[in-house]
Formats: sequence, structure tokens, C-alpha cells
Amino acid sequence: MSSVDRCQPSHSHGGDERGRDAHGLPGRTVPGRGNLRGLPHHRLAEGEVQRHGPAPKGSGGLGSVRGGSVDPLTVCVFVPQITSKSKESIWELIKSLLDAWSGWVVMLLIGLLSGTLAGVIDLAVDWMTDLKEGVCLSAFWYSHEQCCWTSNQTTFADRDKCPQWQKWAELMTGHAEGAGAYLLNYFLYILWALLFSFLAVSLVRVFAPYACGSGIPEIKTILSGFIIRGYLGKWTLLIKTVTLVLAVSSGLSLGKEGPLVHVACCCGNLFCSLFSKYSKNEGKRREVLSAAAAAGVSVAFGAPIGGVLFSLEEVSYYFPLKTLWRSFFAALVAAFTLRSINPFGNSRLVLFYVEYHTPWYMAELVPFILLGVFGGLWGTLFIRANIAWCRRRKTTQLGKYPVLEVIIVTGITALLAYPNPYTRRSTSELISELFNDCGALESSQLCDYYNNPNMSRPVDDIPDRPAGPGVYNAMWQLTLALIFKIVITIFTFGMKIPSGLFIPSMAVGAIAGRIVGIAVEQMAYHHHDWIIFKNWCRPGADCVTPGLYAMVGAAACLGGVTRMTVSLVVIMFELTGGLEYIVPLMAAAVTSKWVADAFGKEGIYESHIQLNGYPYLDIRDEFTHRTLATDVMRPRRNDPPLAVLTQDSTTVEDVETLIKDTDYNGFPVVVSRESERLIGFVQRRDLTLAIKNARQKQDGVVSSSVVYFTEDAPQLPASNPQPLKLRRILNLSPFTVTDHTPMETVVDIFRKLGLRQCLVTRSGRLLGIITKKDVLRHMAQMMNQDPESIMFN
Amino acid sequence: MSSVDRCQPSHSHGGDERGRDAHGLPGRTVPGRGNLRGLPHHRLAEGEVQRHGPAPKGSGGLGSVRGGSVDPLTVCVFVPQITSKSKESIWELIKSLLDAWSGWVVMLLIGLLSGTLAGVIDLAVDWMTDLKEGVCLSAFWYSHEQCCWTSNQTTFADRDKCPQWQKWAELMTGHAEGAGAYLLNYFLYILWALLFSFLAVSLVRVFAPYACGSGIPEIKTILSGFIIRGYLGKWTLLIKTVTLVLAVSSGLSLGKEGPLVHVACCCGNLFCSLFSKYSKNEGKRREVLSAAAAAGVSVAFGAPIGGVLFSLEEVSYYFPLKTLWRSFFAALVAAFTLRSINPFGNSRLVLFYVEYHTPWYMAELVPFILLGVFGGLWGTLFIRANIAWCRRRKTTQLGKYPVLEVIIVTGITALLAYPNPYTRRSTSELISELFNDCGALESSQLCDYYNNPNMSRPVDDIPDRPAGPGVYNAMWQLTLALIFKIVITIFTFGMKIPSGLFIPSMAVGAIAGRIVGIAVEQMAYHHHDWIIFKNWCRPGADCVTPGLYAMVGAAACLGGVTRMTVSLVVIMFELTGGLEYIVPLMAAAVTSKWVADAFGKEGIYESHIQLNGYPYLDIRDEFTHRTLATDVMRPRRNDPPLAVLTQDSTTVEDVETLIKDTDYNGFPVVVSRESERLIGFVQRRDLTLAIKNARQKQDGVVSSSVVYFTEDAPQLPASNPQPLKLRRILNLSPFTVTDHTPMETVVDIFRKLGLRQCLVTRSGRLLGIITKKDVLRHMAQMMNQDPESIMFN
Repeated sequence: MSSVDRCQPSHSHGGDERGRDAHGLPGRTVPGRGNLRGLPHHRLAEGEVQRHGPAPKGSGGLGSVRGGSVDPLTVCVFVPQITSKSKESIWELIKSLLDAWSGWVVMLLIGLLSGTLAGVIDLAVDWMTDLKEGVCLSAFWYSHEQCCWTSNQTTFADRDKCPQWQKWAELMTGHAEGAGAYLLNYFLYILWALLFSFLAVSLVRVFAPYACGSGIPEIKTILSGFIIRGYLGKWTLLIKTVTLVLAVSSGLSLGKEGPLVHVACCCGNLFCSLFSKYSKNEGKRREVLSAAAAAGVSVAFGAPIGGVLFSLEEVSYYFPLKTLWRSFFAALVAAFTLRSINPFGNSRLVLFYVEYHTPWYMAELVPFILLGVFGGLWGTLFIRANIAWCRRRKTTQLGKYPVLEVIIVTGITALLAYPNPYTRRSTSELISELFNDCGALESSQLCDYYNNPNMSRPVDDIPDRPAGPGVYNAMWQLTLALIFKIVITIFTFGMKIPSGLFIPSMAVGAIAGRIVGIAVEQMAYHHHDWIIFKNWCRPGADCVTPGLYAMVGAAACLGGVTRMTVSLVVIMFELTGGLEYIVPLMAAAVTSKWVADAFGKEGIYESHIQLNGYPYLDIRDEFTHRTLATDVMRPRRNDPPLAVLTQDSTTVEDVETLIKDTDYNGFPVVVSRESERLIGFVQRRDLTLAIKNARQKQDGVVSSSVVYFTEDAPQLPASNPQPLKLRRILNLSPFTVTDHTPMETVVDIFRKLGLRQCLVTRSGRLLGIITKKDVLRHMAQMMNQDPESIMFN
Repeated sequence: MSSVDRCQPSHSHGGDERGRDAHGLPGRTVPGRGNLRGLPHHRLAEGEVQRHGPAPKGSGGLGSVRGGSVDPLTVCVFVPQITSKSKESIWELIKSLLDAWSGWVVMLLIGLLSGTLAGVIDLAVDWMTDLKEGVCLSAFWYSHEQCCWTSNQTTFADRDKCPQWQKWAELMTGHAEGAGAYLLNYFLYILWALLFSFLAVSLVRVFAPYACGSGIPEIKTILSGFIIRGYLGKWTLLIKTVTLVLAVSSGLSLGKEGPLVHVACCCGNLFCSLFSKYSKNEGKRREVLSAAAAAGVSVAFGAPIGGVLFSLEEVSYYFPLKTLWRSFFAALVAAFTLRSINPFGNSRLVLFYVEYHTPWYMAELVPFILLGVFGGLWGTLFIRANIAWCRRRKTTQLGKYPVLEVIIVTGITALLAYPNPYTRRSTSELISELFNDCGALESSQLCDYYNNPNMSRPVDDIPDRPAGPGVYNAMWQLTLALIFKIVITIFTFGMKIPSGLFIPSMAVGAIAGRIVGIAVEQMAYHHHDWIIFKNWCRPGADCVTPGLYAMVGAAACLGGVTRMTVSLVVIMFELTGGLEYIVPLMAAAVTSKWVADAFGKEGIYESHIQLNGYPYLDIRDEFTHRTLATDVMRPRRNDPPLAVLTQDSTTVEDVETLIKDTDYNGFPVVVSRESERLIGFVQRRDLTLAIKNARQKQDGVVSSSVVYFTEDAPQLPASNPQPLKLRRILNLSPFTVTDHTPMETVVDIFRKLGLRQCLVTRSGRLLGIITKKDVLRHMAQMMNQDPESIMFN
């Protein structure tokens, strides 16, 4: 299968794995795991969750000492011997240099591939989106814009109607106008949309079920240390790229930004498998994936710095400085590659390039903050409604017909979208138009203002003017588009096709913002004697830029849904390239975050993580309760005692029974049952393997053989069965805390060291164990008990 | 004294303090501590080093449980009781909301104050720098530029010579020209410079010795958990602000950027003391200081995003997402405040605003990378030479005459700087001119090109032209300025006045870059038939921008010295505001980092930290050796045994003897000397205080009283002395690792959890202890033993 199948843990000193979820909990179901049922290949490698933390360094640590299942290759070559000063040192130096550079090579490859893929996706989407409406006669693989590129018409409006480009009705019936042509075009538009979305959902279902959704919740979970096999595999990469083009082209209310992050992470995973340093070490692999996520956002928006910050703020769990530098490098290479491909045909890196010519005024902060409030409310509404719908999908019959669901939603979307010019075109074109400042040559309906014939200003500095009928018409259409987008996005996000929600969220905000902007502009024009306008808006001046309102609204809505702040503002800043507008954007983003946080702490990604029941320990939740480790550890008071092994008094049979009777991932080893002094921790997998090997190969090891975890097994009389020495598979440095340790500290340790479990002792005696799931469960419990825990941070 | 004196640890569950440096090490001198001797108030609160990590949360944790020296107030109010659901909860909610908002309020205040201070400093520096040359007759508090602002002259050159502004010689003798006037001006220039620098160094010596230097090494150390009393106090704030103005105005080769970070951190500390939440909790205070550092860079360069990244990349040790958001807010407020003050008179936020009109070409990457190499070499040279000189200052007589040293260096600087126009003016003006693109109206010597009379291009798009005599003249002067700057900066940085090295480093790079830029431009003009120029530089085109080379050079040199990459590029990007130039900047910054790292891993700040012997555990060093905890822990084989207390068999006298005989900061408590099972850790301070209190207040506690750390003291016959129960001061959750834990993991734990020490156990028995200094010493040892450890990351 895919390369991800090789995601085996390489070494894990310092704290090992032990899936002890069932300890005292009969059900052991993670709520909501069901949503992945019903699709083939959907299995979460539950026992494979890997610790994350103390071991992301290059060295293999004790890997070679505890041989067991550890391949000798996994012990990274990057461990210069302390004592050897011989000739070998030069070779070691060369090897270590090569090895050290491999990180940058991987980044370069990720940047190149994800930049290329993003460029190809952009070109294909452009072409296929236009294919729904018509075809280029001179070359069918040209999009509308490319087709009319060489046309002689001078204005933008005329150029759009160049003869080489023909709508379907014109091509088939010869009539370009009239009700019949309109209906035929309408019908074909819906048909193409249905075809695209059907292809997309079928490909996802058949070849790569993991290609659905935005992928960001899963990547967050993977980066926190959980392994989902095949999620970043080659098939997922291929199918997600293809179906993303189909899904976006179908005109559904979804974006390509989130899926591009997933695609970039698949690239990262692919290149990791080329270097044993990365393929064998989960910690290092995750660092590469963090950087790949940055490259993904970098190409999605053309914003490399924003991409790095997005990875830092939203996606990554552990983000050391080295990753910061490498992410930045990957993001830059990706952006540069995309610019070389130049899919937008304007040498611009960014998706929505805008230039504003007017500064903003302090009084405008009021509408900006109102847009922030709107964004926060939209975020809350969207998250609640979308989660409710996704839960319904999982729990009812609905989830069994993903193809039908996609077809129906596409049908409704196309049916309602076509009549309204603002929803018919692709969402990113819509946003682009809404962001735009109305220049003198603009032919858009939104720029239909009454012009003053005496005006002799430069092209860029056009004063505020009264709105013409086009603008009022556009306002109505935009209002309808707003309602349509709000409703349809809720049902679209979460279907079994690749779907991001950056673009739809931004579209909602941009529409609302533009409406508010035009309203403020017209108020300022018609009432410039009002006290609020008097100071900053004299007649004949250009004082309100509706495009800026659209941008602020987009930032607010995106912030409400994802709860990004810094990265969001930086992305927007990279789009405009001017520090001038940071304050409005920041005001809206922070307001939106505060408003949305007041209704619920979780952004859309955390909500989906919770819905799917991934074991994700959010770094942002504060744990401020006064419980102690002893309140959380297992076994509880009435539970059976902890399953432990003794260092020199357990027989092979005992061990086998223990393995059969329990499904824990590992067992603590103690000196004796009486003293309960902890000496180490042994993994179930290693234990099983070692016993199997010994039974096959080592003569004299039978069921009654004693298993020794001590350094030296005693010399036994020959009549006794051969002892089995297993010290080499014993992890001698398991992580421990005392029973009096506050849970606040324990949570912090789990987060920072990425532990999977931790043993609890008192005065050197082993008392119990705390697993990551115990911690998560306890945190959820505490949150529910404590409605005052709404915190603003 | 200052507010920092209240920097007492508030609570410290999870791992406590114990200054165990002397364990087995007789000398206990940290190399280089001496440099702070000889100056009053210079004391590092050595025992006060505070752990950093698991406890930066709002709750008091176990603070109230372990009463001891912990003030009840330190238990933060932000711990909603889990069980109480009564009326109190509303009050609790309000309190918690207020409390939660206090973070944003502190940020707002920091932003406002540091923005204001930066504005005042800028204005004062402008005025005083010009005061060295002349005075404004219409209003003596005007700088040269402000004085000539209203002048009628149209060109920049003429405007500089407006009649209101008079040079000293003109004012005193009436002659503006001639050798006499020149010499008088020269003499007065030196006199003013000496006066300013004498004032600066005297103020520092008398009032606030901590105000010297850039402050960044110390702030890094403070943020890593070390406390330096008074370093961020009110006096330091006041004196540093005043002396910074004096030092910069004196014309010394130093900048105001680093000191501004220190000033902003002092502001942060000041406002922390207003809120008990921050003044009582070291972890939270450090988060505020991280944000303040961001605000400092934000106002230093007018680059808020760059400031946040600088704090993240260079200064901070622990940077959670909450700090990211708050830093960004503080940085924005500070930048906005500075813009409102508008010290540069151009409504621009940034220090060096530039606009380039030409894209760069792929072939130009070669000179850019060469500039990167130059930057890396400069960084290495500067760090080595400066550290050598600073070490000499500390170890020889030189360090005893700081005032004289400053006077001599100022004298030499002024003497050499005046004759060269590029060194006479302030360094930031020089950088600004070097960054500039030559427009049509530029009067600078650097823009003296032969113009083509037939040219009828727009103002901004001027083709490459042959250089005139002015340019060649400038080249010579710039070369001399380069040598001068390189030499003098080495001797300046580290003197007892506030001194940053961003600006001098950037100046070195900008000069080198501009020289290279002009060379490339002239080559391209005169040899546009050469194969490398053929493709991208047709005759008559504008293909080389020497200003861009200056900027790339500045980035390379700054990167070589500080090893910043991402934040550096972002700061530069914010200066130009165009994504276009990120790739050249990045190429230079990364090359420079690689080259400099090849000669030594440490940047200037880390080198100074090491020189001063601060206990700083660098997060960036990779530790990849295979040593184990048992190799590092104390006691070593031949040492006396570990000093421990037993839980129920030590008398008060024993404890007092132990306290008298040792100077460790704390002691482990075990069940008995035989079993050696660890039950907790007690701090020396708490122990001393508790015994003193008990002796005074509690009847019957005498020297032979037994000290009990158990939960219940046994009922003793009345004849026995009264027992002393000390469980409340016992930390029941000390941090432990096993002796087999790899040091790689131990280092990671120390870093991530900010531990001060860690106990080492085997099978539940206490074996020894590892302190932060043990870890640092071991790491240094390993690095020296291992010359192959040059790593590129």
C-alpha cells in the first residue's frame, strides 16, 4: 500500500506506548469514530499512536540498545562517537553534513512539488470552471480569459465577448441570446457541475477515501502525535489533487486552500520516505509536515510568511525554531515555483491582488468592528450548524449515501447559483471583484456610479460619487448571494469530496463587507454634513473604499470560523502589501475572535477533531483545576489492580496469559509485587515478538521458563527450564510523576513532551498509570463541571 | 528599590529550586562572572533562579497548600471552584473576566508607552545629532530638517542650506566657508560628541549600571527563567531612555534598536507590577516581557510583524500562542502610537522607507549570495573580535576605567568620522541614503550619473547610465567608511553605555552592498554584450538597482551577527512592502547564517551570554550524544553522599547543621536512609523560615525535636520534645528521571519544562540530582570533545 504504511515508530525512549484506554472503562468507544465507517480502508491505527517530544532529535538514543523490533537502520547515523578521533571522523563528518543538508533538500523538493501542483490545479480549475459555460474555439484547452487574451477589444467588457469564445447554446443552436439559449446554457451548466462532482465523489470513494474534507483537522491530529495510516499516502495525494480540481470546478461552495495544505503534507510525507532520517523518525517527520503545511498555505494564497504563521498558529503542535526556518524556506520555494508557472497570468504571487489609494479614518473603526462582530456571529452559527449537520450525517441513514448527497447538493447549488451573476462565477473571482477598488476603467456593475462630467482627476483618485442603478442592483444580488452562501456552505463542508472553507468564509465576509462599505460610502456622500462625516469626508474627496470593507469583512468571517488572528492578518497584509491596513484588519480579526470565543472556545477544526473523536490535546486549552494525578490515574478504587510484570518471577506462560487477557499496549515492570518498585516499562509488541522468537529459536524456552528483566539471570540448575532474558526490550527510563503532582503540571508535561502515558508513583512505589486519553477525558469532565470557564485569551 | 525586587517566586509545584552548583565542584565560579564586578548594585540573584514551564498558568496550583513562604495573595483568583455553584459564581465570573482582560490592558499600556518613548527618543536624537553641527536660529529646539521645512528652496540640496540653520562657525565667526570655519566646526563636533558620551556614561555609572549594553542577552536569560534584580526596574527605564539619546547623538557607532527592546521590556515590567496576576507569577510576567520585546522591535523599525517574529525567533524561550496574539497586539499599538507621533515627519511607520521600480533577475542571485558570504564572514569576525575585546576588558585593568574608555572611543570616532561625509551624519541617515534608488530629483553624490539628454522617461524609470565623478568619489569614501565602521564597532559594542548593534551591522552591510551594486550596474552598462548580461539587460533598460544590493547586504550582515533569518527577512520585507524582494533577502540571510554557523554556532547574543556566564540553556543546540543521566548526576563516584533529609528521623539540630554546612538551595526528603525512597523535596529557604518561626512561636520545639515530613506525627510521650511537622513546606511532586534516561531526553525535559533541577532514581531509590548547571557543563564538555559536531541547521 502507500508509503505511510511504513510509518513505524523508530525508537521511543523516555516514555512508551500503552493503549490503556479500557482500564476501568467498559465501552472504550471514542464518541463519533463512526463517521469513518462505511468507507473502505478507513481504519485509524489506534494502537499506533506515537509519542511526540523528547525524541525528535536526530540520534537514535537507545534505539540500538533495546534491539527488539528496532531495525538497526533506524539508529540514525547522525550520532558522532564521542571517543573516536580516528580516520573515521572525516567520514562521519561528511555523513553528518550530508545528513544535515537532507532537511533542506526535502524542503526544496516539497516547495517545488507543491508549487507545481498548485499551479496545475489553478490552471485546470480555471479551464474547467469556464467549461461549464462555454468553450474556446481556437483551442479548447484555453480558459475564457486565455481565449480572449489576444483579442483586439480594448475594454474589459468587450474583451469578455471575444468571438473565439462561444457559449454552449451559441455553439449548438447558433443563437447566443434569448430564453431558449439561456435555458440551454442553464441546463448544461447544471449538467457539467453534476458530472464534475459525481466524478469527484466517485474517485474519492473508490480510490482514496481520505481525500475528502479539508484535511486540516486530521493533519492537526497527526502533528500532535497520532498516526492515521495512509492519510498522507501517494494515492491520497494523487486523488486529492484530481478531485480537488473537479470539486472546485463543479461550482460547489468550497475552496481549495485547506485541501492544498493536505496535498502539500502528502508531498512532505512522500519526500520523507526518500530519507531514512525522516522515514524512520516520527518526530522529524512531523517537523517536515509542519513545514509542508506552511508551503501549502503559501501557494494557496501566495503568502509565504502568512503560511509559516498559519502552520505555527493553527496547524502545528510542536514548532521549534529549526522548523520555523525550514518552513519559511519551503514556503518561499513553493511561492516562487508558483510564480514561475504564473497561473493567473499577471506575474502576481497572490490570489487577490489589490491596491487601495485612500487611507482609512479613525471613525471607520466602528463599521470595521461591527464587521468583526458579524464575523464572530457567522463563525459561531457556521460551526454549530455544520457540526450538528455532520453529526446527523454520522448518526442517521444520511451517511450511507455520500454520492447521492454530493449530487443533490451540487444540483441545488448549480440551480440556485446560475441565475445570480455573483454566484455563477467562481468564488475566488467573486472575492477578487469585491475586494477591488473602483478605478476609472472598471466595467463591473459594482462600479456603476454617476460620474461628474467636470472631473479631471488622475485615474486612481476618484472622489466619492452617488451610486447608479447598477450598484443598487448589485446590492440586491449580493444580499441574495450572501444568504445562499451562508446556507449552502453549512451543508457543503464535510461532504465526501475535498472541500476547504477559507474561500466560502471569505466570500460571506466579503459580500457583507462590500454591502456595508457601499452603505457607508453613500451615507458619507449624501450626508457629509453629519457630525461623524464632517471631520474626515469633505465633499469631492475620496474617503471611503468599499473594497477595504470587503477585505475586512472577509478577515472577520475567516477569523470567526478558524479563530486565526496573527496569521490571518499577515495573509491579508501580504495580499495588500501595505502596513496601512493592518489596524482595521486586526481590529476586525480580534473582535471576531472575541465574539466567537464568547459562544464557544473551539474553532471549526477543533470541533471536527472532537466530532471525530481524535485524541487531540489542545495546546490552547488552559487547565486550571486543582485535581491531582491520583484523581485521574488508573486503576481507580474499585478496579482490578494494575497489570504489571515482575523482574524475575514471571514465567513465559504468565506473560502470555497477561497478553491474551488484556489489550494494553505495554506493561510496567516492577522489582516484586510486594515492593512495587518500578524498574521499567515494556511494550506489548516487543514482548510478543521476543517470546515468539525465543520459542522458535532458543532451545529450552518453554511455558514455565522464567522471564528475567534483570541485568544478569541467575545460574539455574540444568533441570530448570532455560530462562528468557528480556532486558534489551525493557525501556529503563519510563516517565513518572508522583501521585501528588497537580494535574495542571501533568497536562503540561503531556503537552510539552508529547507523552502517550505516564506512570504514577508514591515514594518509589508504582501506583498506577495515566494515559493521554485519561487526561483528555478528565479535561472534558472538568470543563463540563465548570460553566464559568469561559476565558478570553 | 525598583519594582523588580518583588520578583519573588509565587509557587513552584512540579520541580523546585536548589542551587546545587557546588556539589563536587569546589570553585563554583561561572567563568566570566567578573565583568559585573566593580559596578554598584550589580548582583545577580543567584539562588533566585526560578523554574519556567509547567506553572505559567493562572492558577496557584498547590501554592496555598504549601503555605511556607507563599503569600495567600499569590494564589491567583482565576481558579473557579469546581464544586461551588452558588451566588459566588457570578462574582467569580466577573472577577475572572476582569482578570482575563488584564492581559490585554497590560499590552495596550506597553504599546502606548513604548511607542511614545520611541517617538520621543527619535525626536531628541534628531535634534541632538544636528546640534553637533549647528543650530536653528528661528527655534533652537528644531532639528536641521524641521528648521528648513518651511524654506522656499525647491531642490533638496538648496533646502539643506536654508538661512535659518547656521553652523556653529558661521554663528560664532560669521564665516561659513574656509579652513578656519571647517576646523572650528570640526572641533565643536568633537566637543559635543565628548560631552554627550560623557554624560551618558556618567548617568549609567551613577544611577543605573544595568542600562548599559544592548540588553538583549540579559533579556534572553531572564526569559529563560533567571532573575536579575533591578534589571528591568524603573531607574533602568528612565536612565536607559535618557542615555540612549545621548549615546546615539554622540555619533558613536551604535544603534538604538537593541536598547529599545530593553526599554520596552522595562515598560512591560512596570505595568506588570500594577496587576497582581502578573507581579506575583514569574511565568506570566515572562510572557508579558516576550510581548514587550516584540513591541520594542516594532517601534525600532516600524515593523510590527517582524517584531513579533524577532521575539519568537531570537528573544523568547517559551512562546505559547496566547503570547503570539498578545505580542502582535502590543506591537501594533506601539507602531500605531509611534505613527501618531510621526517623528520622521513623513507619516511612514518604517525607519527606512524605500520603493524600488525594477524587478530583480535570476543572475543577480550570484552577487546576492556573495553578499551573504560577506555577511557571514563579517558576523564571524565581529563576534570573535568583539568577544576577545570584551574578555580583555573584563580580565585586565581596562575594565576599571569605563568612563575613560567611552571618552577615548568617542574622541577617536568623532575625529575620524567628521572628514568623511558618510560617517559624519547619523548612521540611520547613511543607511537610508544607501538603500535609496536614484530617482530623477535625487541630489545625492551617489546619484551623480551622466544623463542622456534625449531621455524622456517617467521620473521613476531611469535606465542604467554611466557613473559620474561623484559616484567614483563616493565609492572611495564608502570604502573608507566601511573599514572605519568595521573596526570601530568592534570596540564600541560592550562599553558601559546603551548600545545596539543592528544599525552598525546594517551600515556595514549596506555600504558593502551599495559598492557591489554600483559595480554590477556599471559592468552591466559597459559590457552588456557579455553573456551573463545579454539576456536580462538590454541597453537603455533599468536593470540593476544598487539600493537593493545595499538592502541585501544589510540583511546579510545583520544575519551574520545575530543569526536571525525569518524575522530579519520579515523586517526587511516590511520596510520595502513588496514580496518581490523576499527571495534575494532570503538567499542572503540563509547564506550568511550558513557561513557564520560554519565558523561557530553562536550569535553575538549567545556569545555574550556565555561570556557573562549566565545559566542559559539554548533551545537551539542539539544534544545528540549518548550519555545517560547517571553520567551527569551528582554525587560522582568519589563525592560525599547526597545530602538528604529523612521523613521522620531528623532532628531540628541535624537540619540546622545541614543548612549551615551546605549551600544547596534545597534537599530531597527520603523515607529512611536505608530505603532511600524519595518522598519529596524541600527548599532551603522554606526550611530556614519554618524552623525560625517554630523556635520563636511554637512552644517546646528545641534542637532535639524531631522533624516530621509525614502526614501524621506519632503521639509521643510528653517527656519527649515537641515534634515539628513540616509536611506543608514539602514539595510532594519533585521531578524525577531514572538513571538510565538518555541525556538527550533529560536536556529536552529541562528545556521544555524549564526545570532548575531534577532528581535521579533507580527502582524508586534516590541516587542523585542533576541541576541546570550540571546540564550546561555537560553540554559544553560534549561539544568540546566532539569537533565533528558542526551542524548546519
